[in-house]
Amino acid sequence: MKIALDAMGGDFGPSNIVGGAAMALKEYRHIERLFLVGDTPQIEAELKKLKCNDRRIEIVHATQVVDMCDRAVDAVRRKKDSSVSRAVDLVKKGDATAIVSAGHTGAAVAATTIKLRTLPGVDRPGIAAVIPSETNVFVLIDAGANSDPRPEHMLQYAIMGSVYSRHVLRYKKPSVGLMSIGDEDMKGSDLTKEVFKMLKQSDLNFRGNIEGHDLFADPVEVVVCDGFVGNVILKTCESIGDAIFNWLKHELMKSGARMAGAYLARNAFKTIKKKVNYEEYGGMPLLGVNGICIIAHGASTPKAIKNALRVAAESIEHQVNPHIVEEVSRHHEKAASLEPALQ
Amino acid sequence: MKIALDAMGGDFGPSNIVGGAAMALKEYRHIERLFLVGDTPQIEAELKKLKCNDRRIEIVHATQVVDMCDRAVDAVRRKKDSSVSRAVDLVKKGDATAIVSAGHTGAAVAATTIKLRTLPGVDRPGIAAVIPSETNVFVLIDAGANSDPRPEHMLQYAIMGSVYSRHVLRYKKPSVGLMSIGDEDMKGSDLTKEVFKMLKQSDLNFRGNIEGHDLFADPVEVVVCDGFVGNVILKTCESIGDAIFNWLKHELMKSGARMAGAYLARNAFKTIKKKVNYEEYGGMPLLGVNGICIIAHGASTPKAIKNALRVAAESIEHQVNPHIVEEVSRHHEKAASLEPALQ
Repeated sequence: MKIALDAMGGDFGPSNIVGGAAMALKEYRHIERLFLVGDTPQIEAELKKLKCNDRRIEIVHATQVVDMCDRAVDAVRRKKDSSVSRAVDLVKKGDATAIVSAGHTGAAVAATTIKLRTLPGVDRPGIAAVIPSETNVFVLIDAGANSDPRPEHMLQYAIMGSVYSRHVLRYKKPSVGLMSIGDEDMKGSDLTKEVFKMLKQSDLNFRGNIEGHDLFADPVEVVVCDGFVGNVILKTCESIGDAIFNWLKHELMKSGARMAGAYLARNAFKTIKKKVNYEEYGGMPLLGVNGICIIAHGASTPKAIKNALRVAAESIEHQVNPHIVEEVSRHHEKAASLEPALQ
Repeated sequence: MKIALDAMGGDFGPSNIVGGAAMALKEYRHIERLFLVGDTPQIEAELKKLKCNDRRIEIVHATQVVDMCDRAVDAVRRKKDSSVSRAVDLVKKGDATAIVSAGHTGAAVAATTIKLRTLPGVDRPGIAAVIPSETNVFVLIDAGANSDPRPEHMLQYAIMGSVYSRHVLRYKKPSVGLMSIGDEDMKGSDLTKEVFKMLKQSDLNFRGNIEGHDLFADPVEVVVCDGFVGNVILKTCESIGDAIFNWLKHELMKSGARMAGAYLARNAFKTIKKKVNYEEYGGMPLLGVNGICIIAHGASTPKAIKNALRVAAESIEHQVNPHIVEEVSRHHEKAASLEPALQ
């Protein structure tokens, strides 16, 4: 498989990205080619530092980088030679099957949507974040591609999230919950009330509305929400996890007995920290585009980039896109067959 | 001060509510009268169990209870003799200054808004949740009163949240952040982009957009969001805090050494648990109604109810409502004076 990696995106520039590329190539023998897209001298310098001369690497030069303050669509239109745009071009031309970027999320979404278009039957792509609960992992979709979706977009998110859950995470009949502000059917915003009706009519395994406190206590396998809410949930989870560990650390340093206790229990902390560490999950697939695009965390470490490349490989292997096309088409047919009955 | 307590609301019926009332009366001597509104025999039975015969208690009989599956506005219109409606009536008649309810949030919001109306200059009330971070506490507004606000409602939330932060939490010049999905000015949903412009023009201490991961890492003192997003944040925070502690407990039980460690460090855990325990915060003021209304957690323990009564007392003492009227009017005047300049 062939993957294009935006080597310039992310908060720490090319060093973490190239570092992750080198790690991934060592671990994943099935990557046949890895395009590192960006400023050639910087990429070469990083490879040299790492003493990495893997022949599967091909550097593709790009002179521009999308800044965090650029507007997404503008960035695609104006910075034609940006690393993310050039990486998407490789997928468009068929040289690569997937792109991975830790840069400006909006720009990655816009570039792939504009250049690769969406899959047949899908109007807008959604970001699927995989989030750990105590007993399982669940897919949160949309985690930030589309802040102002229409109800039908959210139905498509539910379908795509279910496909991903079934084919990649191996849940047989993934349960779907609609993020809302009350368990009862009629509760929610104007938007979620519309989506509720659509999900109820679909043949997804729809469990109804779920609330913030169901996320970890009584988790469903697919959580559907608009991209604004999803992004807030994702970042809040990161934030509060870190906050609790910081407070705990601070408290544990307050006496000798506590410090001794923390030492004895250190492996318990390590296990949890690993579980809530986004690095392990690596990247979030942008589902619904005609190609594979993995959004990595802006603050990605090399390990996170390595895992984002793993996620890209999984999406290719599990044929996520053909399955999405099939499922969406089935839902459209079912909806069309229901329409006369509803009149 | 005189407070009306909806004795029937909440997941556990009158026992926790009446229990909380008894605790509060012991602790807060400045409560002159506490109306317990609901089914008299049930309330009397609870008081008897607790051997509580405090003379400041007055039972006000109400024959109905709002169920969680009732629609908020319908509940107010149809269940005229519900405990929450009758409690609000006491405030309307001037018999009580504040109402506290752990029942159906939407019904409490609707009953107070319909019967007491909003404060002059305020269009829609917002729930202000006080949330702990490592270094301080912050106000999140709106935490669930209004899922589909207009931009001007959110400006009013920012003003009211600042007033509460200044007068009750004692922050001198509370910093205000707008919950969004990117730090940069132009990022967000259609709604938050409009609100951003309004906040920028206001003379609030506006810090710009904040993201989920700023909530605890780099907290502002007032976080503004729509009621849907706020409710999701609030419940997600509760959920993930509990989840992490459950995982940790599970991990700590896995070996003798870990259990010994946990024992030595037990006070550190207790401190954190106390800090993230909603019981300590008790209730969330519904700001903007012409009266004082405190929304308590549906799963309130007696201690949480006691603290909700404390929050009601604080709102009365600190004259939150007159301060809101003054601030909102100042902002309206400023906006009116700016208008010609903008044309």
